[in-house]
Amino acid sequence: MPSEFALIRNYLTGLGASRDDVLVDSGDDCALVQVPAGASLALTMDTLVAGVHFFADVDPYTLGHKALAVNLSDLAAMGAEPAWVTLALTLPNDDQSWLAAFAAGFANLANAHGVRLIGGDTTQGPLSITIQAHGLIPADQHPLCRHGAQPGDLIVVSGTLGDAALALRQLLAQQIPDPWLRQRLEQPTPRIALGQALRPLASAAIDLSDGLVSDLGHLLTASGCGAEINLARLPLSAAVAAEISTSNDWQLPLAGGDDYELCFTVPPEHAGRLESLAAQLGCQLTVIGTVDESKTLRGRDLDGELITLPGGYEHFVASGSQPGARCSTTTLV
Amino acid sequence: MPSEFALIRNYLTGLGASRDDVLVDSGDDCALVQVPAGASLALTMDTLVAGVHFFADVDPYTLGHKALAVNLSDLAAMGAEPAWVTLALTLPNDDQSWLAAFAAGFANLANAHGVRLIGGDTTQGPLSITIQAHGLIPADQHPLCRHGAQPGDLIVVSGTLGDAALALRQLLAQQIPDPWLRQRLEQPTPRIALGQALRPLASAAIDLSDGLVSDLGHLLTASGCGAEINLARLPLSAAVAAEISTSNDWQLPLAGGDDYELCFTVPPEHAGRLESLAAQLGCQLTVIGTVDESKTLRGRDLDGELITLPGGYEHFVASGSQPGARCSTTTLV
Repeated sequence: MPSEFALIRNYLTGLGASRDDVLVDSGDDCALVQVPAGASLALTMDTLVAGVHFFADVDPYTLGHKALAVNLSDLAAMGAEPAWVTLALTLPNDDQSWLAAFAAGFANLANAHGVRLIGGDTTQGPLSITIQAHGLIPADQHPLCRHGAQPGDLIVVSGTLGDAALALRQLLAQQIPDPWLRQRLEQPTPRIALGQALRPLASAAIDLSDGLVSDLGHLLTASGCGAEINLARLPLSAAVAAEISTSNDWQLPLAGGDDYELCFTVPPEHAGRLESLAAQLGCQLTVIGTVDESKTLRGRDLDGELITLPGGYEHFVASGSQPGARCSTTTLV
Repeated sequence: MPSEFALIRNYLTGLGASRDDVLVDSGDDCALVQVPAGASLALTMDTLVAGVHFFADVDPYTLGHKALAVNLSDLAAMGAEPAWVTLALTLPNDDQSWLAAFAAGFANLANAHGVRLIGGDTTQGPLSITIQAHGLIPADQHPLCRHGAQPGDLIVVSGTLGDAALALRQLLAQQIPDPWLRQRLEQPTPRIALGQALRPLASAAIDLSDGLVSDLGHLLTASGCGAEINLARLPLSAAVAAEISTSNDWQLPLAGGDDYELCFTVPPEHAGRLESLAAQLGCQLTVIGTVDESKTLRGRDLDGELITLPGGYEHFVASGSQPGARCSTTTLV
């Protein structure tokens, strides 16, 4: 390890919020934290590799944001309150300005959610970022799992779908996306407050990282159910709606990844609480379909005709007879 | 993510011991665990990059062992009881036999310490392994930190020093190390039982990953002390002793990395307990020097003459006026 990496570490030490429950911070063999009595601890880990998950020349500020956001999104999907994160950063060189910008983007989102960076590792090698996020679920609360959906439950998604995929498509075509659209790709918003509000309300939840059909498929597989979704109900931004009106290609909202919205199921008796929750959180919530007893995920187009769903459908069908057995195709947690 | 990576995940899901405190295992957005009331949670994360931390063609069984061992060693240095681990594995391809061997080496060590793999991420890219280990320190116990050493405390190390560095030196010279020596490099033994036994005994502890002088330097810096060590007392295997008798080069035990032994300080009134502890654990424990009020780390050679210590000494002196400020040169935790 080159000694200049000690300088790099200065950018990362102590990032994020101060927390009284951190007993030993960065700088010892381990960090040490205190978990409240009775609370359960939620853990999630995601790796982003340059050239695979992001363009190597992406703005490091947005990369710092996104690397943390995708992990906080997993905590949100579990209904957990974010607490501490660790960061393993592998860097090809000691570009100080890159590090400063990465740290600033990371810290800005960490501070917004009261999260502290309590440790990790810095190594030299091909650019890669692994973050583990730790969240708490209070003693008297239930986590949101993937396996609780029941026939008759409503399927709800937050925000709008396909924006990140449209921004990526434009960047790959050497076009410059609208700033709002680009932000949807590069600085996704983890739905932390929504996840916690859903604990007493939702029967199952997942975050949308791989695309609606794939991720909803995981939820349904884990729950041993099927569902029907209605394309006319999918929440679309003006940009994605315009793209579809031209191409009639529904890949973006159905199979586009990187949305980091929540997809969850709600028993019909709780449906009346969705509107006030949406208003309270300032977050669009849209019912897009209903869970049923089938083992298939089906879609109806704008004419009410059944269509073949792209992205993950066949995988889901293939594993439908083994609920839960293959419910994670992109991460172990 | 290629679909064949789903197969890879089969090798990793559910590795290690069964634990009743795992509420949600691999396969949801997060894993969920229960921390005993009052216990504190120790967290440590280390990354191993191919070509930097290990030879890319190393036996994957030993790599699986070592990647976990270096993290368990950090838990040992904190006096924590290992509980759960997460694994972020970045692989260039889906070599199933490589994965099976890696998983077997990982699982063998995990089972030996009652540890469960509860999640992580599998991605495609340059070979790299990030592991986070989670350990528990019971409510009525104190963690072992780096900062508690006091003048007069004895400095103790476990095992023998420099074996891994000698094995590495031989491999780099295209020689084949003795199997025992090679195992010291490729399959280090985390001193888990020793770490826990030291909680009521040691004033400070660190694990030896970067070499004795460097790591003892971190401990002393964090404690605001100095020390004198005696080369004649360093515990050496026959192989390292033979090498030194030929070369009179003390780099191996003083600055060789990858020992993963514990270095700790013990108040003199507890010194009498070291021998019975060593016998009880079947682990060599050797007093190599004494903490003092200086801000320097000094060595005496076999003739009792003061010598310049290699590896990290100047770094330690340079930061001696800022105790704790730079006490971690290789990891944030």
